[in-house]
Amino acid sequence: MSIQDTVRSMAEQSKIAARELASLSTESKNRVLNVMAESLVSQSEYIQKENEKDLVAGREKGLSNAMLDRLHLSDKVMDSMIGGLREVAALADPVGEIDEMVKRPSGIVVGRMRVPLGVIGMIYESRPNVTVDAAALCLKAGNAVFLRGGSEAIHSNLALAKVLQDALASENINPAAIQVVPVTDRSAINILLELEEYIDLIIPRGGENLICFVSENSRIPVLKHYKGVCHAYVDEDADLEMATDIIMNGKVQRPGVCNSLETILVHKEIAKAFLPVIATSLTETGVELRCCPQSKVLIPNAVEAADSDWGMEFLDLILAVKIVDDMDAAMEHIAAYGSLHTEVIITTDYGNAQKFIREVDASAVMVNASSRFNDGGQFGLGAEIGISTTKLHAYGPMGLRELTTRKFIVYGDGEIRS
Amino acid sequence: MSIQDTVRSMAEQSKIAARELASLSTESKNRVLNVMAESLVSQSEYIQKENEKDLVAGREKGLSNAMLDRLHLSDKVMDSMIGGLREVAALADPVGEIDEMVKRPSGIVVGRMRVPLGVIGMIYESRPNVTVDAAALCLKAGNAVFLRGGSEAIHSNLALAKVLQDALASENINPAAIQVVPVTDRSAINILLELEEYIDLIIPRGGENLICFVSENSRIPVLKHYKGVCHAYVDEDADLEMATDIIMNGKVQRPGVCNSLETILVHKEIAKAFLPVIATSLTETGVELRCCPQSKVLIPNAVEAADSDWGMEFLDLILAVKIVDDMDAAMEHIAAYGSLHTEVIITTDYGNAQKFIREVDASAVMVNASSRFNDGGQFGLGAEIGISTTKLHAYGPMGLRELTTRKFIVYGDGEIRS
Repeated sequence: MSIQDTVRSMAEQSKIAARELASLSTESKNRVLNVMAESLVSQSEYIQKENEKDLVAGREKGLSNAMLDRLHLSDKVMDSMIGGLREVAALADPVGEIDEMVKRPSGIVVGRMRVPLGVIGMIYESRPNVTVDAAALCLKAGNAVFLRGGSEAIHSNLALAKVLQDALASENINPAAIQVVPVTDRSAINILLELEEYIDLIIPRGGENLICFVSENSRIPVLKHYKGVCHAYVDEDADLEMATDIIMNGKVQRPGVCNSLETILVHKEIAKAFLPVIATSLTETGVELRCCPQSKVLIPNAVEAADSDWGMEFLDLILAVKIVDDMDAAMEHIAAYGSLHTEVIITTDYGNAQKFIREVDASAVMVNASSRFNDGGQFGLGAEIGISTTKLHAYGPMGLRELTTRKFIVYGDGEIRS
Repeated sequence: MSIQDTVRSMAEQSKIAARELASLSTESKNRVLNVMAESLVSQSEYIQKENEKDLVAGREKGLSNAMLDRLHLSDKVMDSMIGGLREVAALADPVGEIDEMVKRPSGIVVGRMRVPLGVIGMIYESRPNVTVDAAALCLKAGNAVFLRGGSEAIHSNLALAKVLQDALASENINPAAIQVVPVTDRSAINILLELEEYIDLIIPRGGENLICFVSENSRIPVLKHYKGVCHAYVDEDADLEMATDIIMNGKVQRPGVCNSLETILVHKEIAKAFLPVIATSLTETGVELRCCPQSKVLIPNAVEAADSDWGMEFLDLILAVKIVDDMDAAMEHIAAYGSLHTEVIITTDYGNAQKFIREVDASAVMVNASSRFNDGGQFGLGAEIGISTTKLHAYGPMGLRELTTRKFIVYGDGEIRS
């Protein structure tokens, strides 16, 4: 069979499975998620042996240590996948929820019922644990999932899929509910992105190149988890101790993630009191500061910022620093350089807090809290499949509910339209 | 300027206007909508003179009477646009609504605030009144709108845009909030569909060809108002009088619209009692019946259905008729031939009603009510900009709220993540 035919016929099977999943009871879904967790425990030797093949091939190909680390299904990663399955089993099932039920003047009773999206296509790079994490969330929300991981993780992904599919089969659920595309050729992605009759949503997870490629080539709607260029604005009358805590936490606690801080904007009236202090704390923990000309005067040891540093996602212990005239200037800077991810104001001024919350466009806008809170778990959504920085369908962390949609339901008693 | 540069620089202006609109007060939006209504009244002579140019050109080009009718801004159409503006002014403003506010274990208070989408691109065909209807809804939801109507309506659309823009200017609102692309060349559509940095959503309104073209060529998310192939299933123990009323209403009241019925599916045990009766009522009002072999036995004068009649959107006084073994067979038929628009069951059986509501996939699923109710006004959303048959973001009628999204907002007191 050609690659085209293979991918197409698998996607067709996904669609059939999706129809079956849509009416599966919560109890059945939870039970199979727990069976999957047990299977990962009992099959861990097999999975790690297959993973070893990918690691050997990766070393031969000369993958970096960071990439090999992402590829490795260590005992710790195995435990986290197993725990993840059990956590998703414990989450509330959004499918079938009904709300906004109203009686209309015509006599009909109209409401909205939450239903699965159908088939979700995940396109991701090296981490094989995404296979299990994504499959669990999609399944719980009643969706079939069609997974296309990185070629360097193919043995691991196929092994994980086999274990999950065996668990589905043991519970009399169509194993096509979770499928991994076995084709490592890149053309499989292009084929997948055109199968709009079978796939309802594409979620790419990976670097900027992958996400751009997917959104430029997809005929299927795409939910983008794009880069996080997060700012903290320190207002004129901020509590400086609080500002220090929030900036340190945002930059240092885990600099490699999307909700870490990349730039701080400091009101000119407070810069002199604040910047030398925060600069000391930051540089002591190894943070490199890249400063605008005014702030460089106050932090002489800092690097001068290049134009390209504004709007840069460093994902590292680097922070851009800029002095602004007022909150409006800060909001202008954020509108120009932000990535619609997370924006923070530190202030004691009520009016400024409310204006910032209302007017800044980002998936999460925060007053006096760390940008690191922009996360499905922290926001109370349970596990998340990503953080959407596009505004359609979902904006911000995507939990189970964001993997569903709502249809209208109507209960009538013979009403007709006049 | 090249077409490329013209379209791009206009879209850039739309984006600037969108930022201004996002923080406009409800009062300002309502006031300008009412000023627009007054301007349409006072400028009706100018608008109808420009419309006459399109009508003359249309007649010269040999447009059909139906197309000329859609193009005509008659007094009645003018009144409906003016009434529409006032109605939208009277609707509640969704922007700024906050819900799901919760305090999290970390101490932060998290909620969701409804915000505009940004810039909405409308691509539509001959009806120039869409210019005003769409502009009103987009504006009320805080969005800028970038309109690209059919080339045959260009004078009408530009005249309407001018009147609306003058109204915006008179209220000190950026006139770029409502723009009509002045380029009739079809290449303008392709250019528009690639401006993902300026346009947040595309809504195409028109025939199947336009919608397919837009969704195949757009890099921007598209909300599709696709065809309506709506079914009514008459269950074994349906109230036959009710079934007759609902089917007559669904087929005859306005056959040219997307929520009219195209096929009826009748349980085999009730076919003999029901089909001859409904056939008489339907044929008396001029409906042509296209029957499966079994139903043709009961309605001898009917046409035999061709395979292509299942799933056909007739938009005319034609109805396909099929006898099915049971509700499962009806649901299989709907899954195979439906268009995710509106599906109806007529039954007195509680279990079947609930199963049909739960398991049928369509933007609206109804028990004992006419398919003609699938409409924003009838469902209580106020005016609608279309009916989405795609599941992402909105599924079913799209009112003001569907032209917005929700961002997360966080009120903290210095919380950081541990």
